[in-house]
Amino acid sequence: MLSFRLSAALLVMGMAFGASAASVRNEPVQPITPAEITDPAKVELGKKLFFDPRLSKSGFISCNSCHNLSMGGSDNLKTSIGDRWQEGPINSPTVLNSSLNMAQFWDGRAGTLKEQAGGPIANPKEMAFTHELAVEVLRSIPQYVAEFNAVYGKEDFGIDEITDAIAVFEETLVTPDAPFDLWLKGDDNALTEQQLAGYQLFKNSGCVACHNGVNLGGTSFQKMGLIEPYQTTNPAEGRAAVTGKDADRFSFKVPTLRNVELTYPYFHDGAVDTLTEAVDIMGRLQLGRHFTDEENAQIVAFLKSLTGKQPEITLPILPPSHDNTPRPVPFD
Amino acid sequence: MLSFRLSAALLVMGMAFGASAASVRNEPVQPITPAEITDPAKVELGKKLFFDPRLSKSGFISCNSCHNLSMGGSDNLKTSIGDRWQEGPINSPTVLNSSLNMAQFWDGRAGTLKEQAGGPIANPKEMAFTHELAVEVLRSIPQYVAEFNAVYGKEDFGIDEITDAIAVFEETLVTPDAPFDLWLKGDDNALTEQQLAGYQLFKNSGCVACHNGVNLGGTSFQKMGLIEPYQTTNPAEGRAAVTGKDADRFSFKVPTLRNVELTYPYFHDGAVDTLTEAVDIMGRLQLGRHFTDEENAQIVAFLKSLTGKQPEITLPILPPSHDNTPRPVPFD
Repeated sequence: MLSFRLSAALLVMGMAFGASAASVRNEPVQPITPAEITDPAKVELGKKLFFDPRLSKSGFISCNSCHNLSMGGSDNLKTSIGDRWQEGPINSPTVLNSSLNMAQFWDGRAGTLKEQAGGPIANPKEMAFTHELAVEVLRSIPQYVAEFNAVYGKEDFGIDEITDAIAVFEETLVTPDAPFDLWLKGDDNALTEQQLAGYQLFKNSGCVACHNGVNLGGTSFQKMGLIEPYQTTNPAEGRAAVTGKDADRFSFKVPTLRNVELTYPYFHDGAVDTLTEAVDIMGRLQLGRHFTDEENAQIVAFLKSLTGKQPEITLPILPPSHDNTPRPVPFD
Repeated sequence: MLSFRLSAALLVMGMAFGASAASVRNEPVQPITPAEITDPAKVELGKKLFFDPRLSKSGFISCNSCHNLSMGGSDNLKTSIGDRWQEGPINSPTVLNSSLNMAQFWDGRAGTLKEQAGGPIANPKEMAFTHELAVEVLRSIPQYVAEFNAVYGKEDFGIDEITDAIAVFEETLVTPDAPFDLWLKGDDNALTEQQLAGYQLFKNSGCVACHNGVNLGGTSFQKMGLIEPYQTTNPAEGRAAVTGKDADRFSFKVPTLRNVELTYPYFHDGAVDTLTEAVDIMGRLQLGRHFTDEENAQIVAFLKSLTGKQPEITLPILPPSHDNTPRPVPFD
């Protein structure tokens, strides 16, 4: 009887451990759950659209140009290069784990990934196309028509289905199993001592007040330059451009810190190239705290433990244009 | 004894069939052999370099920008977009099956893929970098240093190793098993009647005089506009730019017709968008022959049978820049 009770107790403990593996530690950050793909045909269609430069006027710029999945879902440039080499107004945020943000764009002007996806296509400084022309191009390509028909049950698809498919693909772009995730799940050996010290410092000095949740960011808007003003020539107004409130000037969506090792340069103006400098500036401007070299190195080491398993993407083969497909206009 | 002889004869026949499977039909075109990868680490390194925009001054243009493996190894633009949106001088040839050409570039000025690979990196109208800066950038990235060391046994690698790795990757970009290849190997059902009629016409009307061999092209230089002059505003001189001979003016490397369905627009100036128009122009200017609509459609159907199995590429994850990696300069 004792033996039976012990076994049962162990069994219950085992089940409990299994079910709560994700929250073994009581921390203000939660591990990432791998993407669950429920509609593979829609994901595959969205992937093609994500990589298709025919969604731009020039036929040269795709979603992947500025959210490059070889480079942490970013372009690693201060600000992006748009149609006819126009300089973008702001640093391209990573598309990785972007489904975990409360809103999209630095100023949160899009509530959903689907809403976001329509923005760059029609922005004259980015892909410089129109939704109407994008639809016309895709509808002229028989293989796309067949795929939209298979996925959405209609051949007369529009920007609604296009951006929906892109968003559904983007939802798969999560990066689970970073060393820090493994540690959160209970693996005591997943972090080095320096990384663990960095996390404690990150938590105790207040970084985690904004960089929290499953994405270590993306949960609030915060003023850039809270204790000391942030010096920049970038004219972005931040959240105020959406709310019209003066109090929201220079308030930006807190960026995710996941894969931050890969998504340099940093801040909304991309002014800072290294994590060392970014940590130093954040400490002084947002927390009024000057981290020592040792502390800085600890936090940087912790930040590098946030690099997760990158999505494994098989490059899509795009359906060829048809004889009557409107052609790109790279040069006027 | 009879039985033994018969078996032996069958064995010999079997072997003969096996060995000559590739040339079951006596045709001036040969099927493509799949790539054999003997040094996977070198191929993987070359793939990273092929996709790495840090080989350009701007940090925005990679080999794949103009030889996009999602789009038949081309950019589907008349002429390419280079650094600061400069208009390229000539249509980007496909990288697919390029190892099967006798020389590289439209004018054949590079004898090998390795020699070719160094060209765009240092061309001020293309990637606008220098070999020295490219080497400096890559040598600053610890993961690249480790990979070059593993593959080439040296940490002080240079442009020689960089272009070698790119070329070895490019050698894997062949597209076997097009319907026409299956037909060449003996599958009578691989082509439609229209495609087969198109091939007979292609052969009998003289197209195959230039578009022959395993790559249906890439075996000779020929004058563009043989019977009638080719009208173009493109200033390219062709082979004459290499040989200095007036007789070589407007002589270009005959392009491969493999995957031609995917590599529009056509000709060295990319002036023609559709295969129908390309076949019509080639017939009149090179052969002095006006194909009827039916004949034209047959040849186009045949050309579409040359679309092979596209390389399945897993997008590489590029090693992040180091704190001291020189940064891209997209805007001056």
